[in-house]
Amino acid sequence: MTRRMKLIAYLKTGPTATMPGGWRHPKARLHDFLRPEFYEDLARALERGMFDGCFFADSFGIPDVHGGSFRTYVEKGGQISYLDPMLVLPLMARATRHLGLGATLSTTFHPPYLLARMLASLDLISEGRACWNIVTSATDMEARNFGMDGIPPKEQRYDQADEVVEACCALWDSWDEDALVLDPASGIFANPDKVHYSDYRGKYVRTRGPLAMPRSPQRRPVFLQAGSSDRGREFAARWAEAVFASNAGKANSIAFYNDLKGRMARYGRAPEDCRILASTAIVVGETEAIAQEKAAELIALADEELTVATNSAMMGADLSKGIDHTGLGAARGNQGIAGSTDRVLQVMQAEKISFAEAARRPRGGLLVGTPAGIADQMQDLFEAGGCDGWILWPTVSPWMYEEFATHVTPELQRRGLLRTAYSGRTMRENLLDLPA
Amino acid sequence: MTRRMKLIAYLKTGPTATMPGGWRHPKARLHDFLRPEFYEDLARALERGMFDGCFFADSFGIPDVHGGSFRTYVEKGGQISYLDPMLVLPLMARATRHLGLGATLSTTFHPPYLLARMLASLDLISEGRACWNIVTSATDMEARNFGMDGIPPKEQRYDQADEVVEACCALWDSWDEDALVLDPASGIFANPDKVHYSDYRGKYVRTRGPLAMPRSPQRRPVFLQAGSSDRGREFAARWAEAVFASNAGKANSIAFYNDLKGRMARYGRAPEDCRILASTAIVVGETEAIAQEKAAELIALADEELTVATNSAMMGADLSKGIDHTGLGAARGNQGIAGSTDRVLQVMQAEKISFAEAARRPRGGLLVGTPAGIADQMQDLFEAGGCDGWILWPTVSPWMYEEFATHVTPELQRRGLLRTAYSGRTMRENLLDLPA
Repeated sequence: MTRRMKLIAYLKTGPTATMPGGWRHPKARLHDFLRPEFYEDLARALERGMFDGCFFADSFGIPDVHGGSFRTYVEKGGQISYLDPMLVLPLMARATRHLGLGATLSTTFHPPYLLARMLASLDLISEGRACWNIVTSATDMEARNFGMDGIPPKEQRYDQADEVVEACCALWDSWDEDALVLDPASGIFANPDKVHYSDYRGKYVRTRGPLAMPRSPQRRPVFLQAGSSDRGREFAARWAEAVFASNAGKANSIAFYNDLKGRMARYGRAPEDCRILASTAIVVGETEAIAQEKAAELIALADEELTVATNSAMMGADLSKGIDHTGLGAARGNQGIAGSTDRVLQVMQAEKISFAEAARRPRGGLLVGTPAGIADQMQDLFEAGGCDGWILWPTVSPWMYEEFATHVTPELQRRGLLRTAYSGRTMRENLLDLPA
Repeated sequence: MTRRMKLIAYLKTGPTATMPGGWRHPKARLHDFLRPEFYEDLARALERGMFDGCFFADSFGIPDVHGGSFRTYVEKGGQISYLDPMLVLPLMARATRHLGLGATLSTTFHPPYLLARMLASLDLISEGRACWNIVTSATDMEARNFGMDGIPPKEQRYDQADEVVEACCALWDSWDEDALVLDPASGIFANPDKVHYSDYRGKYVRTRGPLAMPRSPQRRPVFLQAGSSDRGREFAARWAEAVFASNAGKANSIAFYNDLKGRMARYGRAPEDCRILASTAIVVGETEAIAQEKAAELIALADEELTVATNSAMMGADLSKGIDHTGLGAARGNQGIAGSTDRVLQVMQAEKISFAEAARRPRGGLLVGTPAGIADQMQDLFEAGGCDGWILWPTVSPWMYEEFATHVTPELQRRGLLRTAYSGRTMRENLLDLPA
């Protein structure tokens, strides 16, 4: 079988994600980003674009590390989750038939029983299309919303994450596949010999089970993960079925790809059990000049203060204080996402600019060009062994995905690099090319 | 304005609720109770029936107090939540325009930030139709699924519940009504002076806020509650906008009604700020004889062992051990729902039978008859000052609600006892007759 690209969309429940100021673009749907229609249209655009799936990035609160205040985030429209993703995913399931659907759920803040039940329910109502972006959360801001003084140290968070995923797996195995009987004549609803306690007892979490619901089509949701740190990569090597990586040059991408695939063997996993996806957004035009003009228009919307505040939030350090990269570790304590810091450092090194300048730059990694030009760039990294496909974050959502589906999907299909129809019944079958 | 009945449906995410064996009835939809269509049809039937709203009863696990095992519950189809209600409520919101939509969410197991976010999201996507059945949870079985050894004492649970609701209210007040600006030209997304920290610090829960989302149409979901104990009634008097009570004779209902309305003044609330709803199910026929035959057919499905196991679960005591009502307190420790125990005791006293016999009886309170006969019974308690309306639990769902909408709703409307159109924009406006 020809090797084909996998595509996953990185979303937020709001008018944009990732691109500061994207909500100001004329194509942004400010009138309905809190309404079902927005998410239904988004899901349909992604399915038309032949995406394997999508997930909502998420956090619990409004970042206030930058200048010790949330003012910039609120005033300039920083990227927060304006709705609980679990409430819009059912609407997206109902509007589509093949698209994988996921949420970012935190192993630090969600008890495993709640996690297992939500995700199995999503898998049931979507008929096997649930995925879970597993995060440990990384900010004191969120911890304080959950009654803690600060976020636990990273090593401890990942140890707890291992336990939470193990506990969820134990709960998902409560009901055997054929436990439901549903025979009105005999009065047998289910076979009690095929329902089991989970009895999970870890250092951080415990749950007894059984989960009070039949097994879902995928048994477990597809696991996504984005760890960049050594501990994060180890977690991904053990659990992840798709990993999203930053896209900071071919050499970096190939190195990350090989490192992660190499770590999987020690968990008894084959390299093809996990897809590694490079992160990008696209700006497409009929000509190169039109595309460049559209990109300039988007980048012009990015307020510099909001860009730095966003980087403060991602790194967990107050960059308004003139911190440079050498002082970052001390400034952020247990907070911050390693991948976000890496991204700024890569810009700093690649462009030979200061850390402060790099932190003011709107997020890079945009692929700008004609459909053929974008497909060329996607094909290049894919064939060079730098990725198995792409995580597309939106400039403006759902508009960018509509543009992708209309212009880039057909070009990739023409080259045999993207499916022309979904072959699997479930998200996992599509993502990992398993027999349906 | 004529005083009109309020109607709320008590649901479970499964083929039945409350009536043991209801899933065996020919009208039960065994083929799709794990699918969206089931819940969409259910919601449409309730809206056609002019219900104010509905909510899903819920618990976290499969009861195993009876005989120390979940076998009976699993084998005979006990009433558990086969899907997470929060995942089906968005589908029901999308299928209707007026129906109030709620979940039972536990103040013992859910952190307030998660609660506030889920409910505000539901209120936003339904345009002001969210409600919350506030429970403290009452079983060791559930506590063990959340890493505890047992459920905390009732007084402590209610003290924590007060704090959790206070914390949620503080979070729901994070954004002023007019905080969102959404002006692309100026780049102002929201007014930061109109977004506030919550800074809630209680004995049991803490949350800092702000909630990362704009104020929802109702600001707070409608609060439902079912406390029967003295502490539960006090909680209801402070918070509840609808209370559901058992329906065990006119005198008991009137006494409960007057007691609860009388308690409200000390919280600065008027009697009309809370609707008291009597609990019932209906079996309707063209003639009295047909209705009685239908009722007999339903009651015949109720397996005796499952009935006792259900009562064990509700009371939190293993009734298989021959416990009588005098030994109940010692047997159940901190567990059990006072209202469920009251219901069995009332049957015991009214029919002069033993406690064990009463616990084997399928749940009573069925109104059986012609549309006019059912309306007569509903009107009688309503006009006697025993209730402001009804909580309808299903014999078979959604079938019973379809029958209600087709046969009983028009009869109540003819008598001027039920709305002929929804007058409010939100659930609260409809339930409390507030100006739209």
